[in-house]
Amino acid sequence: MATTEAVKAKTLLGECSAEFAGTFILILFGVGVVAQVVAGGIGDHDSIAWAWGIGVTLGIYVAGRMSGAHLNPAVTVALAAFRGFSWRKVLPYVLAQFLGAFVAALVVRWNYTEALHKVDPGLTIKTQGVFSTLPGNGSLDLGVHMWGGFRDQIIGTAILMMVILAITDLRNTAPAANMAPFIIGLLVVGIGMAWGTNAGYAINPARDFGPRVASLITGYGGALKDQFGDLYFWVPIVAPILGALLGAFLYDLLVGRNLPIADEDEEPGRIPEENTSA
Amino acid sequence: MATTEAVKAKTLLGECSAEFAGTFILILFGVGVVAQVVAGGIGDHDSIAWAWGIGVTLGIYVAGRMSGAHLNPAVTVALAAFRGFSWRKVLPYVLAQFLGAFVAALVVRWNYTEALHKVDPGLTIKTQGVFSTLPGNGSLDLGVHMWGGFRDQIIGTAILMMVILAITDLRNTAPAANMAPFIIGLLVVGIGMAWGTNAGYAINPARDFGPRVASLITGYGGALKDQFGDLYFWVPIVAPILGALLGAFLYDLLVGRNLPIADEDEEPGRIPEENTSA
Amino acid sequence: MATTEAVKAKTLLGECSAEFAGTFILILFGVGVVAQVVAGGIGDHDSIAWAWGIGVTLGIYVAGRMSGAHLNPAVTVALAAFRGFSWRKVLPYVLAQFLGAFVAALVVRWNYTEALHKVDPGLTIKTQGVFSTLPGNGSLDLGVHMWGGFRDQIIGTAILMMVILAITDLRNTAPAANMAPFIIGLLVVGIGMAWGTNAGYAINPARDFGPRVASLITGYGGALKDQFGDLYFWVPIVAPILGALLGAFLYDLLVGRNLPIADEDEEPGRIPEENTSA
Amino acid sequence: MATTEAVKAKTLLGECSAEFAGTFILILFGVGVVAQVVAGGIGDHDSIAWAWGIGVTLGIYVAGRMSGAHLNPAVTVALAAFRGFSWRKVLPYVLAQFLGAFVAALVVRWNYTEALHKVDPGLTIKTQGVFSTLPGNGSLDLGVHMWGGFRDQIIGTAILMMVILAITDLRNTAPAANMAPFIIGLLVVGIGMAWGTNAGYAINPARDFGPRVASLITGYGGALKDQFGDLYFWVPIVAPILGALLGAFLYDLLVGRNLPIADEDEEPGRIPEENTSA
Repeated sequence: MATTEAVKAKTLLGECSAEFAGTFILILFGVGVVAQVVAGGIGDHDSIAWAWGIGVTLGIYVAGRMSGAHLNPAVTVALAAFRGFSWRKVLPYVLAQFLGAFVAALVVRWNYTEALHKVDPGLTIKTQGVFSTLPGNGSLDLGVHMWGGFRDQIIGTAILMMVILAITDLRNTAPAANMAPFIIGLLVVGIGMAWGTNAGYAINPARDFGPRVASLITGYGGALKDQFGDLYFWVPIVAPILGALLGAFLYDLLVGRNLPIADEDEEPGRIPEENTSA
Repeated sequence: MATTEAVKAKTLLGECSAEFAGTFILILFGVGVVAQVVAGGIGDHDSIAWAWGIGVTLGIYVAGRMSGAHLNPAVTVALAAFRGFSWRKVLPYVLAQFLGAFVAALVVRWNYTEALHKVDPGLTIKTQGVFSTLPGNGSLDLGVHMWGGFRDQIIGTAILMMVILAITDLRNTAPAANMAPFIIGLLVVGIGMAWGTNAGYAINPARDFGPRVASLITGYGGALKDQFGDLYFWVPIVAPILGALLGAFLYDLLVGRNLPIADEDEEPGRIPEENTSA
Repeated sequence: MATTEAVKAKTLLGECSAEFAGTFILILFGVGVVAQVVAGGIGDHDSIAWAWGIGVTLGIYVAGRMSGAHLNPAVTVALAAFRGFSWRKVLPYVLAQFLGAFVAALVVRWNYTEALHKVDPGLTIKTQGVFSTLPGNGSLDLGVHMWGGFRDQIIGTAILMMVILAITDLRNTAPAANMAPFIIGLLVVGIGMAWGTNAGYAINPARDFGPRVASLITGYGGALKDQFGDLYFWVPIVAPILGALLGAFLYDLLVGRNLPIADEDEEPGRIPEENTSA
Repeated sequence: MATTEAVKAKTLLGECSAEFAGTFILILFGVGVVAQVVAGGIGDHDSIAWAWGIGVTLGIYVAGRMSGAHLNPAVTVALAAFRGFSWRKVLPYVLAQFLGAFVAALVVRWNYTEALHKVDPGLTIKTQGVFSTLPGNGSLDLGVHMWGGFRDQIIGTAILMMVILAITDLRNTAPAANMAPFIIGLLVVGIGMAWGTNAGYAINPARDFGPRVASLITGYGGALKDQFGDLYFWVPIVAPILGALLGAFLYDLLVGRNLPIADEDEEPGRIPEENTSA
């Protein structure tokens, strides 16, 4: 083929289409597994942690090359603030992420119609939690209220962003062979297992708000009024953005700014020998 | 050795033999783990999800080089429709896949003879479900009937195919170092955890029909008449094929057609820097 | 250093030392996890499957370069019969494997002394099963007797060997970047989840006989007389060897003999494009 | 940029900052998951094993390039004794590791305030165990006392160090593509599943002592006096160091000293063909 075709220009629409597709896949697994556990009665919290992580891995493989696979408005904002990602693209990316999460949640809602109605005919808070998060995962038993969720979401997303920057930093020991999406998936599995008590590890405004709206327009309007639902929706939007900024700042402060610029004589990305062996 | 021998031609028989072997391994793990959980009482639904996924990974490593390791008639048809896989090879591949699944199910049936007869002396629907799928996994408790299974199988296989095309697309961020079979296994683990409530995630006509026939000829004829068994068999054949076509269409629509043709100056398959850093 | 030192010759003693070390690590995890589940009451069958697989992965990383990391007499015999591994080395390798398994089992026995004696003061069959295998995992509930274990061990080890040959076959799609030990670990996880009902997936004469003797000389002499213990010991020795030979034969028959010899123009080990895309 | 900038010198402060950051991430997952299981009631022992392992993997990716990612005083001492790591750096590294673990434990303590106080209002030994280890995991049911914990910690850390040296030994079959941190994470998952009964697999003085002090100054002073708490604290400091030295010695004795120096004609790190095939 002609060299004029050899470098096909990426369009912003193409990039947003990939963000839509990647977030769509992420939420098909993430909200899907919660539906299976809560409505289908198959699996437990660890299944949720694993399938969310797998969804992240697969969503990144879908969108990686076209858009960089942010799949998360908090990540997009932090990359704009700390890594020069174009501010002009932030809003389109974020909209595509919300849309992808919203449509995926509708697909889950549709496929699990029978099970959701059988298990929870009133469409209450019991199965609304399949879609979006609540402080204390909808229970007051642990005494976690809005501040507990807000604090938790800042910390959880700071961990997410700090480690994402490490894993994708070619000056550091970034996984090669395109295996970084797998490790980022493990990161989310770990957050689900260690940081999911207070607020269901939303750590992603699109993951939470898209499915929240999808549940609102498909019969869960009443359920969303329960407990903190209608007051809480902004927490998993604002706190993850603050957390991602904090995490990016901490990575650069503690590690990033100290990393040597790659020396031509040294294989980039290897653990240096002087710290592991003679 | 002589250069005339250096490039040994592949034969269709050799390719079909590999498809047989790969699907054989897949089903030895997949039907094997359900037998262990249902008849042996060891493990739970998550064991089933993991061992199915591991079976997929290992089946691909067995068949990959010879046949491309489709191991699934729905994948074969979608690759023919969307990726130029030879239509002439579709039927032989599909027959080899069914045969591999059928023989593997007979091996499981044989090995677990004592356990199956001890746990379910009448060979009823209780243990027939070790071999093939049913709407609602054989239970009416969730109110899932044939349409719920049909819809679910379209969606589940669309997810499978959409992500397979992403993972194996060298223009995208495909895993290198021959680690793609591992990621495809994780994909099936995730589908098992998130999309297994309505219809047991057959997502593969060979996986379902081969073991179904194996159970039919080894004492489960009566069980297959229960509930929807004898009417349902076509659903996990037709719906996965439709789903795989849909998934391939969606991947190309949302991502594939926008991907730049690899630029010589750029390392293929890396997440582009302009979207992740300055 | 001088070039005369640059290529240090391997000695058979060095190779056997590595086989000892690799099998030692394998059994420290394998028998260790069963001790933790049975005597410590921590974890369940899936923990056993995962930790056995992890032990295999790690044992291979320990021994890989020196000895090829067979860690299993059945694998050693099959490699001698089908891949030209020197028959002269078979017996020394096998002895090193048994010794590694034996010493590791003694370490587990020593570390879990308090727990084993607390949970099972009589050192009966209840905790003897921590060390070696029995038909039906020591229970008669499923009606599995010696033949059920023998048959199962042939099948399980055939699966093991067939897939090992695929994963390590550079003409096939072998994992690169030295990730094969990880995939072989997953293989053993899958066998534990799908093929562990009848006979506890010994699939390795050293894994079974070494710890059996270790338990015999540390107070479990009486327990080994229970049920089939003293009659059964040869089954997990003989059946795995037969199974490994069968598995190697099947791999070569169905896949190996058809694989093209690598063409210089083609990147070795990639899934060929003609079967996956246009 | 100018060549004078091209090789930015590493400073000891930068290295210690990375050790701090890596251990911080490790403990955020490790102590975090125990808090989620014990106080949040979400997950079980296997979640703990997985999230600890994931924390190790991610901590290594954070610190790897700057400091070699020891994240563990026992590893630092063993690398100094057996691999020429500078003794001068040992104390600064160890202090950074303790500080990282201490601060991370404070973050967990803060985030899980509500849940810890709700589940255990008196801040007793019941939730103190979230932070540091005890013989028998705080229970006397298995009869494990101080010696059982001491012995166990020597063995567990010997396994850790022996396998770490294998995984990172480029003369052996070390994982490439920067995937070693993932395998080292699996190593810790396996230790958690197989060697966690007697003493909660501290295997890292910083992991244990940092969070122990964090709990002491945040209300758990009384709890630490229970059982062996105030007498036991030195065991997970001293025994892991002895164990790491033993493990490094065993690796070099059994494998390391026999490994051939890389031959230029041979691809380094591959399993040699003479032991796997003809």
